[in-house]
Order: sequence, then structure tokens, then C-alpha cells
Amino acid sequence: MIGGEALVRSLVASGVDVVFANPGTSEMHFVATLHAVPEMRGVLALFEGVATGAADGYARMRESPAAVLLHLGPGLGNGLANLHNARRSRAPVVAIVGDHATYHRRYDAPLESDIDTVARNVSTWIKRSLGAEDAGADAVAAVVAACGPPGQVATLILPADVSWSEGGSVAAPAQRRGRATVTPDRLGAVAAALRSGENAALLLGGGALTARGMHAASRIAGATGAELLVETFPARVERGAGIPVIQRLAYLAEMAAGQLDGLRHLILVDTKSPVSFFAYPGKPSDLVPDGCEVLVLADGGDDAVAALESLASGLGAGTEPAMSDPPRPERPDGELGAESIARAIGALLPEGAIVSDEANTSGTFLPTFTASAPRHDWLTLTGGSIGQGLPVAVGAAIACPDRPVLALEADGSALYTLQALWTMVREQLDVTTVIFSNRRYAILRMELARVGATASGQRALQMLDISPPEIDFVAIAQGLGVPATRPERAETFAADLARAFAEPGPHLIEAVIPSLF
Amino acid sequence: MIGGEALVRSLVASGVDVVFANPGTSEMHFVATLHAVPEMRGVLALFEGVATGAADGYARMRESPAAVLLHLGPGLGNGLANLHNARRSRAPVVAIVGDHATYHRRYDAPLESDIDTVARNVSTWIKRSLGAEDAGADAVAAVVAACGPPGQVATLILPADVSWSEGGSVAAPAQRRGRATVTPDRLGAVAAALRSGENAALLLGGGALTARGMHAASRIAGATGAELLVETFPARVERGAGIPVIQRLAYLAEMAAGQLDGLRHLILVDTKSPVSFFAYPGKPSDLVPDGCEVLVLADGGDDAVAALESLASGLGAGTEPAMSDPPRPERPDGELGAESIARAIGALLPEGAIVSDEANTSGTFLPTFTASAPRHDWLTLTGGSIGQGLPVAVGAAIACPDRPVLALEADGSALYTLQALWTMVREQLDVTTVIFSNRRYAILRMELARVGATASGQRALQMLDISPPEIDFVAIAQGLGVPATRPERAETFAADLARAFAEPGPHLIEAVIPSLF
Repeated sequence: MIGGEALVRSLVASGVDVVFANPGTSEMHFVATLHAVPEMRGVLALFEGVATGAADGYARMRESPAAVLLHLGPGLGNGLANLHNARRSRAPVVAIVGDHATYHRRYDAPLESDIDTVARNVSTWIKRSLGAEDAGADAVAAVVAACGPPGQVATLILPADVSWSEGGSVAAPAQRRGRATVTPDRLGAVAAALRSGENAALLLGGGALTARGMHAASRIAGATGAELLVETFPARVERGAGIPVIQRLAYLAEMAAGQLDGLRHLILVDTKSPVSFFAYPGKPSDLVPDGCEVLVLADGGDDAVAALESLASGLGAGTEPAMSDPPRPERPDGELGAESIARAIGALLPEGAIVSDEANTSGTFLPTFTASAPRHDWLTLTGGSIGQGLPVAVGAAIACPDRPVLALEADGSALYTLQALWTMVREQLDVTTVIFSNRRYAILRMELARVGATASGQRALQMLDISPPEIDFVAIAQGLGVPATRPERAETFAADLARAFAEPGPHLIEAVIPSLF
Repeated sequence: MIGGEALVRSLVASGVDVVFANPGTSEMHFVATLHAVPEMRGVLALFEGVATGAADGYARMRESPAAVLLHLGPGLGNGLANLHNARRSRAPVVAIVGDHATYHRRYDAPLESDIDTVARNVSTWIKRSLGAEDAGADAVAAVVAACGPPGQVATLILPADVSWSEGGSVAAPAQRRGRATVTPDRLGAVAAALRSGENAALLLGGGALTARGMHAASRIAGATGAELLVETFPARVERGAGIPVIQRLAYLAEMAAGQLDGLRHLILVDTKSPVSFFAYPGKPSDLVPDGCEVLVLADGGDDAVAALESLASGLGAGTEPAMSDPPRPERPDGELGAESIARAIGALLPEGAIVSDEANTSGTFLPTFTASAPRHDWLTLTGGSIGQGLPVAVGAAIACPDRPVLALEADGSALYTLQALWTMVREQLDVTTVIFSNRRYAILRMELARVGATASGQRALQMLDISPPEIDFVAIAQGLGVPATRPERAETFAADLARAFAEPGPHLIEAVIPSLF
């Protein structure tokens, strides 16, 4: 068996049976193997950032990795931004990067590149397969490393001759580690802080953001008066009817500071201590108020849900959380804008939907109006590198073929990876894409003032406008095979959205709206 | 003066007055400065790979760098593939990568990344500005490093607080180094090899590929019987009426081996010793035949043209090269395909055109049929990372606003960086794009067999097809603002091409053609 086949069969044996691929010549034996191993599903992307973002979305929903197949350093480079986001998601991803044959590297052929160095920015686990006989075991080691917990991007570099040489064998399936139980000491310290009578908050992230986790957190809040907050950019949060509504920590440092003001104890549950997204002149980077103690209840390797449940029991919390049940919005009519779109989504979001949210500034009203929609999962831009929403939607749809996916995309962000639309058609994915077309990098308009660059004039501002020329997303979507509409009023938007949810396969709705900034 | 302004003004003072930008929050002070410094032209790209590829194209035509403005490690990642190509072009590029404020880095905010590490793959010169007072001098140092010779990608990392802090000053303009004169010893050794009576060839690359350089090389060939070859993927080669027609070394190692067979002396003129692009099982990577001596006449820092002229004089070569003057093709009619398109381009290419060639397999017939077109420059895919042709066309058009630009794009390659079309509209660039739409990664179809992966079946082959769904490039182009047509026969293609050349501004022609593989 050649190394490439041993690798593919070992991945399948370890439960990795989807590969998002943008291959080149060095990966041809891997690709050829896909015919012999039908258990491995190959999903073609027209750009590497689509493949890596899809692997992130897949992993967030499956809690198990997909593989990504990339072509040398430049291919990894094209995929790097969404691997950066995946790293911040702590999503398990097995990145397989084809390389020149081992003996070919010294010739410095045109595509020669230092793959290890590029990978270092997103992977702590990087390995180069040295022979066909290693390929299977290396694949399994990559799966184990990727799974953690916490999940990570594991990069396996596969030289072409390792892939094409005989001598490979299928490795025993990966033994995945479970999450660790939080120690009584930690539980005790947190319980003491919560019983102190001083202002305390639990900041929930990562694995805590399941219905069960937030249910337990709400019981704790009910028993102790602690505030609850969700991290600013969660990889995945369960939401909707029957799940406690917990505010997210704001993106804007000024607003986040208000949310954290007066706290004496901040308890981290599988998340990091809050910091400002960017630095701003004269403003602090660390958002923890002076005099506030930061305690860790659980981190990425821990079972955060079990820890919250133990804590709730230890505190003698009641079994039912305090639930507010805000009313579901009506279908809107009138002018189309960020608010009416949010109302329409809240009114129409189907049961079990997965929302990939890269609406950025235009998404301001979404949390409020979708809180009472039926149960759904919400996936956000974890690492700040835009161009992640459409690929994540692809991956989520491959991971959960029976669930509708809604991609909420700012126009500027959509343009980084719009090749994802083609994969949605190729794979007939049930993804509805809404483009929030405000025709500018609105967040940069806002940030320009926030960083104090107030003297800017027209020649600067036009660098933040993506019009003229106006981009016609309907035409682009149709060019890539996705049926698309551009409703001009809220009621037609809602009708188009309802139709998109009702029909199988991908759809796109371009909403041309005023910018909030 | 803030550091960002000092940097921009220092770049301008050193002759760098174009910046291809895809900025984020960390770069807002740089952007704001663009209003105060109208001498710096900001060109917005919707994706970083467009900006970096444009800088490559600009530098190839101007022999002087443009700046690129990128946003932290992920932005550099998105631009990395075309910086890889620029590195192989030995194009001078000043990459300015914004970073978090110096004091913000330790908080590991979501966009925190190791920019230096990402940059290492494409830059040997990497510097981080440490204070506003350094920014101007650092900018000039980056220009000097980028210019070489040989040219290179110089990466300057600009922390946000360096950019926004006062204390900057404009640095004295860069003193650029000239090219070195080749030593008499080297000239003598090469002359001796050429006089030996044994089979010899000059392989011309880099700076040798001007009309003057190839004129001198042809005189040498006339005097000595040496073969002449042009490197496989030149960054820029002057071609057309009055310039000697010199074959390129073939991409396929089998064909290249045939071209080099029997040589006893291979003389490198500003290029590298030829190697196979990829490794193939059982085939050599080094293309130099056994028993052939490799001599270097000039390398990247040398004045290759002067060396060729000195060599020609020393050999007593005649003043006029042997010129073949192949007839210019007629405008074609009949079926549309790779050959009829090449004939149409050969028949219609305007005087002074710049051709950005990423036609890949569909470009097979182009060298033959364009050899007798009026004088033009031909720019190729230097580093093998596809998605370079449209951005290079953008950069070439900005560099040479009075010259028509023709971008020849394989469909698969075009899809990596098609956001470039929008910049062509925004800047009203005189670029005609031809999409060779064969609806597959034809080169991978070919490579699949060449690497010996012969057992592949349909599930493998579909990973190399970019249809279904069929991509409608006319719709995509129109969505991005470019007028577009899809002629179905050779005569309508020629008519559309003539019209596109005659009208100012960008145009796109999609040619749906059979794949050659």
C-alpha cells in the first residue's frame, strides 16, 4: 500500500472521513486514493481559505476533525487566515500539506517553500512524514493532537514521495482523550468567591456554551446573584427557546468595561481573561477592572459543563434557572435595514438552524431578535480574520446535513472567500446566505475615529468604501451557480428568506442597506 | 509628525508612491495619512492576494517597488502566495504589515499573530519599527533592501502605536545600489567554453530578457553556434517585432531534457540551473545532462545585459543578430479553442502591450502566434502559486497607465483572486482579461498521470473538475463591474478582443474551450 493510501485509510479508521481539498501536483496520489477509499468524502474548494474555514465549521459542529488538503507553503498561506480563526475556535483540524518529494527539496524548485515555518503560526503540532511506512501512524498522531482537548490545528506535511512509495500500512484508530474533571480545590475557591457577597460574574466560553452548561450557570446565578456573560466571539453557542438568554461581552472595549465595572470576582469558564480586541491610544488593553480577582473554573482541557453542574450543586442552587422568555418578533415590513433584517431572521429561523455569523456591524440587532427563535447554534468569527463566515457555513452544512444553515455575511467580509458559494452548489448544501451590503468596511469607518485618526479626509475614507463600483452579489452568486435575489423592502426580504429556508440547496439574498457607521 | 505619516512621506521621498492596500484597524493611521500626502496613491484591493500580486506586477514593469499594506499575520497570510511569486520574480516589494500596539501584544488578543514568522517564507529582510522616531528611516531601509539588486520582498512590521505616536521625521531618500559589472575572469571562462567547439547553450533569465540583452545573446549565438534558451517562467521578457525569437525552456521535464540534451556547457545568465518543476517517480530532478558543465555569466546582482554585450564584443560577434521574422497570424475564424485564441491574440495585440500570462495549459500556442506581434512585454507565473495573473495585470496597469494590458487567465487560476476585477474598475485600468474556461484543473489532469497515479477513477477525477456547477465568468465580471462577453466562435472572439483593446477601461472575455488534457 502506498503511503498516501495508508494515510487516507488511517484517517478514516480514526473517524476522519471528510477532506476539504484544494490540491496540486504534490497531492495527486492522495487525490487518486479517494476513488479506492469511498469512505473518505472529498469536498473540493476553489480557494484554500474556503477549505480551511470549512474544516473549522465542520469541527465546531461535529467536535471531531475533518482533514484539509493543501498544496505546499503557498497553499497553506492561502488557508492561513482561516486556520488562524480555527486556532481561536480551538477547533480540531487535521491540515495535510503536500510537499515536494524529499529528494527534490534541495533543488529549490519554484514552489519550494518552508512549510513548517508557515504552519508555526497556527499549529503547535507540526510533523513531517519521513517515509511511507510512517504515513498511517503519523495521520493518527495528527488526529490525536488535533482532538486535544482542547482542539487545535495539527499540521502533517506529506512529501510527494512518501505519498507515492509502497510500504504503508493502516494504523490503529486514534484513542481520543476525554476532558478532565475540575478539582475540588478549584470548585471550592470559586464557590467561596461566589458566596463572598461581593460582585461576581461568570464569563462563559468554549465548551460551557451548551444548553446544559448555560442551564447550570443560570442556576448558579439564581442562587448567588452572580452576573453571567458569554465570551465576545464564541466558536459555538446554543441558543433559542428554552435556553437561558445570556448577554455576550461587548466587542467595543468601552461597552465591555461597562459590563465588567464594579466586579470583584471574574470567574473564567473555558475562556480567556477579557482584553480589548485592538489597542486604542490612552485606553487600557486589559478589561478586568482594578481590584477584581480573576479565577479559573475550567480551561480548554476541562469538562466545563460538569464543573458548572458540580458548582451549582455545591452551592445548593435550585434545579430550574431563572428564564426570561422574550417574545419572538413578527415578520417585519417597511424599510430594509439591519434591524428589520434581524427581525425577519428572528421570526423565521427554523428549528435546528446553524447560524454562521459574520455580519459584523450590520449584525448589531441580531442577538436581541433571535433570542427566542427555536433552538439553534450560533457560530461567530473567533479570530478576527474576516472571510470566515461562508466557509464555516460550508463546513457546518457538511457536518450536519439535516440541519438548515444560515450564513450572515457582511459584504466586505464575503468578498474574501466568496468561492465558497460554488462549493455550496457542488455539494448541494442547504445554506441560505444573506449579504449585508452596506458597501463599505463600516467597522473601519468606526475604528478610524476610535483610534484617534480624526483628521482623515476623502482620500482616506475612500480606502474604506467598497463602492464605487457597486458590487452586484446577485450576479456573482448566479455566476457561481447560487440562485439569488435582491429584495428592496423588509417584507420581500422576509418572503425571500422564508422561501430560501423552505427550498433545499443554497440560496443567496443580497440586502442593500444603510451602513450603521 | 506621527510615525505613520513619517513612514508614508519617507516612502514617497524614496520614490515609492503607490500603495496597494487591504487595511484593518491597526493600519488606520497609515490610511488617514493618505489624505495629507496626496503624492502617495492608495489602491484598494478587496483581498490581500490582489494587493501583493499587484505589487509584483508593478515592480516588474517599473523596476522600482510599490508598497503593500496588510493587516497582521492573517492579512500577510492571505497575501503570502503572491509574495511567494514575487520572491521568485525577484521583484522589489515593500510589504508593510500593521501589528497591534507594542504593549498590546502580550494580551494575546484574537488577532495576535507571529508576523515575523509568516514573513520569513518570503522575506530575508524583516524589520519591526520600534518607535515613531524610527519609522521614516525604517521605511527607507526597506526600500533599499527591496531594490537590491536583486529585488526582494522587504517586510516592515508597523505596530499601531508606532504609527500613531508623535516623534517621526522624514528620512533622507534611499540611495539605490547599481548592478555590478561582471569580472573579466568570468567573461573569459564563458568565452573559453563558447570557443571550445563543444555544444553550449546560454540560458537567459531575469535582467537579460530585455531587447538589448537578447540582441547581444543572439549575436553571441551567431558567432559561436551556441543555443539560446529563455528560462521557463520569466518575470518579464520583451518580445515582438524586431526582437530575436528565443524559445523558452519547457515546463515539462521530458521536453526540457530534450532541449538540453547533448550540451557540454550550460551558461546561466541571471537565472538558476534548471530543475524539474515537480519531482516524478523515477525521473531526475536536476535537468542538467550528465557531463555538462554549468557556468555562471551573471547572477541577480549583476548587469546581465552589459555582460552579454561585453561577451559578444570579446567574441568578435557581428553587430546584427540572426533574425527570423515569422509572419503575424491572420484573425481566425471557425471553432473557438486554445489555438484560435492564440491566433487572435497574435493578430490583434497592440503596440506596447503588457501580457500577464496565467493561461497555463490553454496557453500552449501563445508563444508561437505572438512572436511577431508588435513590441510587448510578457509576464509569467514565476513561483507556481496560481492566482497571480489578474493581480499582476492590475499592478502592471498602474505602473504603465499608457500601455494596454492583456491578462490571460485559466479559469481555475482566475478564481483564486478574482476580486482583482473590481480594482480594475475602481481604478479604470485598461486591462482586457481573457478567461480560458476549460472547466477543469487541466494541468492536474495531466500531472495525475505523470506522477504515476494511474489507477484513479471518477471520484478522484471530479476533484480536478471545476464543473458542475459551470461557472459563469460573464456574470461574475458584471457583478464586480467589468463589462463582459462570451463569444462562441473564433471570429466573434477576435471582434470582442479588438473592441476591448479599442475601448478604455477593463473588459473581460470568457472563452469556453475544450481542455487540452
